[in-house]
Amino acid sequence: MADLNGTGWALAKRPVGMPKMDDFKKVDITAPAPKEGEIQVRNSWMSVDPYMRGRMYDRESYVPPFQIGEVLTGTAVGRVTASGHPDYSEGDLVTSMAGWRDVWTGKPEELMVNKIPDTGLPDSALLGVAGMPGLTAYAGLLKVAELKEGDTVFVSGAAGAVGSTVVQIAKIKNCTVIGSAGGEEKCKLLKEIGADHVIDYKAHTDYESLLGALKKAAPKGIDVYFDNVGGDHLEAAIECARPMARFAECGMISQYNATEPQPGPRNIIQVVGKQLSLKGFIVSTYADMQPQFLKDMAAWIKNGDMKFEETVMEGIETAPEAFLGLFQGRNTGKMLVKLA
Amino acid sequence: MADLNGTGWALAKRPVGMPKMDDFKKVDITAPAPKEGEIQVRNSWMSVDPYMRGRMYDRESYVPPFQIGEVLTGTAVGRVTASGHPDYSEGDLVTSMAGWRDVWTGKPEELMVNKIPDTGLPDSALLGVAGMPGLTAYAGLLKVAELKEGDTVFVSGAAGAVGSTVVQIAKIKNCTVIGSAGGEEKCKLLKEIGADHVIDYKAHTDYESLLGALKKAAPKGIDVYFDNVGGDHLEAAIECARPMARFAECGMISQYNATEPQPGPRNIIQVVGKQLSLKGFIVSTYADMQPQFLKDMAAWIKNGDMKFEETVMEGIETAPEAFLGLFQGRNTGKMLVKLA
Repeated sequence: MADLNGTGWALAKRPVGMPKMDDFKKVDITAPAPKEGEIQVRNSWMSVDPYMRGRMYDRESYVPPFQIGEVLTGTAVGRVTASGHPDYSEGDLVTSMAGWRDVWTGKPEELMVNKIPDTGLPDSALLGVAGMPGLTAYAGLLKVAELKEGDTVFVSGAAGAVGSTVVQIAKIKNCTVIGSAGGEEKCKLLKEIGADHVIDYKAHTDYESLLGALKKAAPKGIDVYFDNVGGDHLEAAIECARPMARFAECGMISQYNATEPQPGPRNIIQVVGKQLSLKGFIVSTYADMQPQFLKDMAAWIKNGDMKFEETVMEGIETAPEAFLGLFQGRNTGKMLVKLA
Repeated sequence: MADLNGTGWALAKRPVGMPKMDDFKKVDITAPAPKEGEIQVRNSWMSVDPYMRGRMYDRESYVPPFQIGEVLTGTAVGRVTASGHPDYSEGDLVTSMAGWRDVWTGKPEELMVNKIPDTGLPDSALLGVAGMPGLTAYAGLLKVAELKEGDTVFVSGAAGAVGSTVVQIAKIKNCTVIGSAGGEEKCKLLKEIGADHVIDYKAHTDYESLLGALKKAAPKGIDVYFDNVGGDHLEAAIECARPMARFAECGMISQYNATEPQPGPRNIIQVVGKQLSLKGFIVSTYADMQPQFLKDMAAWIKNGDMKFEETVMEGIETAPEAFLGLFQGRNTGKMLVKLA
C-alpha cells in the first residue's frame, strides 16, 4: 500500500455568467495509503454535467455549493487500488462522487460509493446511459411525467446524455417523440435513435419560429414535455400542451449562466385552464428505482433498443474544457473525461 | 303550466381589458311551459365568478367561449315551477348552469342540473361554500396540493369565496395559514376565520415588498401555495417554497384582464432544484369528490368550524355590476345576485 500522486481541479473563483478557464485551478494531490474504513482508488473516467454550474454559485440548493480552493466533485468510475474497508478489495469497480481528480482516498460512506457488479457494460456507460443521466431520463419520464403508451412526447436538449435516453425510452414505450437539439449533426443523431420529428433550435432562434416548428411537428399538441432547456422551449411547450399534459422539469440549461433574472413563460396562466402539471425533480429522490433501472437498461442495450453516444476528452488536464463544452453544445451524448 | 317572462344578460361585445357595463346587454326572455323531458325553473340566486372573464375571450379553453348576443351562463339555484321530466316535480330545489337570467326552461341533462336534497343550508350557500367555490377549495387543497397536517399554507385571494374556504379547511387540518387579501377590512375577516398571518397586498404593491412580507410570515418557507392570483404572488411563493412544496394553481386573477402577455415568474428555474410541483386544476375534474365534500362541509358549518361571508347584490339588473365588482375587490366572500 503506497501513496498515489495525481492531479485535481479546484474552483479558483466563482464564475460570472459563462464559466471561463481561469475560474478553475489545477492542483497536485496525493491519495495516501488507506486507513481503516477507507479505500484508495484510481479513477478511469470522470463526468462533467450541466448541474455542476449551479453548485458554482454561492447559494443554498439541493446540494451545497462548491467551495473556492477545494477540489471539485462529481461522478467518477475507477478501480480500488488498496482497501482498509471490509466490504472492498483491490480491483473492485466503483462509482463515486470523487470526480475532477485521478486518484483519491476516502470513506465509501462519505462519497456515495457504489460497488458495481459485472454488467458486461463498458466502464464509461456507468457514468452515462447506465448511470446518473440514464436514471434521470428513466425516473423523469416514467415516474415524474407518468408516461403512457401512445403519448406525444417533446424533449429539449434531446441529443445530450439525458435527452437521448429520454428519446429512446419513449420510443420503447410506443410514443411519438419530438426532439430538439442544436445543429445538423445532432439532429441527424436524433433521427438515428428513433425520434419521429426533429427541431434544430439553431434554425429557430426566436420564440415564434420555435413555436411554429413545434406546432408543425405536433399538430394535435403534446402530452409530455421533458425539459432540459427552459426559456423559449418551456413557453412553446406550454402553448402546445394538451389538457392534462405533464412536464418533467429536469433542467433549464438556457438559464444557468444568466447574470440577470430571466422572464418566465408569459403563458403560464395556461397551466390553470389546461390543468397542466409542472414537476421539478432531482435524480437522487428516485434512487429506489435504481435496481429496476439497471435491469431494464442492460436488457435494452443488449437487444439494441438503446444506443448511446459519448464525447470523450482525454486526460485530467482537459476537465475544465470538457465542462465548458457543455455550454457550447460541443457534446453529442454524454460528455466524459478519460483519465487512465 | 304557463309561460314565465323574465330578464337575462347577453354579451354585447367582447371586453378588451377590464370589462365595462356596455359589454353587456339586457334582454327580455320567456321560459315556455316545459315540453316532455324539460323543466321550468325560477332562479332565486345566481353566481358571478372570476373564471367567467376567460369565457368572454374568443379562444379555445376548457369551456367554450360565450357567444355574442347569447344569454350568458353560470351557476344558479332555483325552484322547479313546472316539470315535463319524470325525475323532477314542482317545488324541487335545483342548481344549474342557467344563471344570468331569472327564469328558464330546458333539459336537466344539458344544463348540469343537480336536484339538491334538504341539507338545512340556506339556498345561497349552494352557490358558495357548499357549491362550486367550496368544492374548488376542498379538491384543490386536499387532492391537488395533497395537504398534510402541519403544513405551512399560503393562499392568495384569501378573502374570496374560494380563498376563505381554503383558509378554514387548512386550519381544520391543523396547518399554519398565511392569507393575502386587499385592504384592512378583508384582512380583519381573515383573522376572524383563523388565518395565522395576514398580508394586505394593497400595502405591498411591488414584488420586493410582497416577498418581504411573505418571508416574515413564513420564515421557514411554505409547503403549499393555493394560487388564485398569479403574477407577483406566484413569484414570491416560488421564492419562499420549501423543497417538495406543492402549488395548486386555481386561478390568476391578476392576469385575466391583461391586454398584453405578462412576464412569467423570473425564478421558475427553482421549480427544478426545489422539486416543486405546480398543478393547474378545474373543479369539474374533481366532481367525484362531491358527495364526501357535501358531507364534510355540512358538518363543518354545523359545528362552527366553517364560516362564510356573502356579498349580495339585489335583482337581475345588478348582475353585470356584481361581475365587474369581482375585479374591483368589492366582494368579501362569495359575490352573489339575489333574484327572487
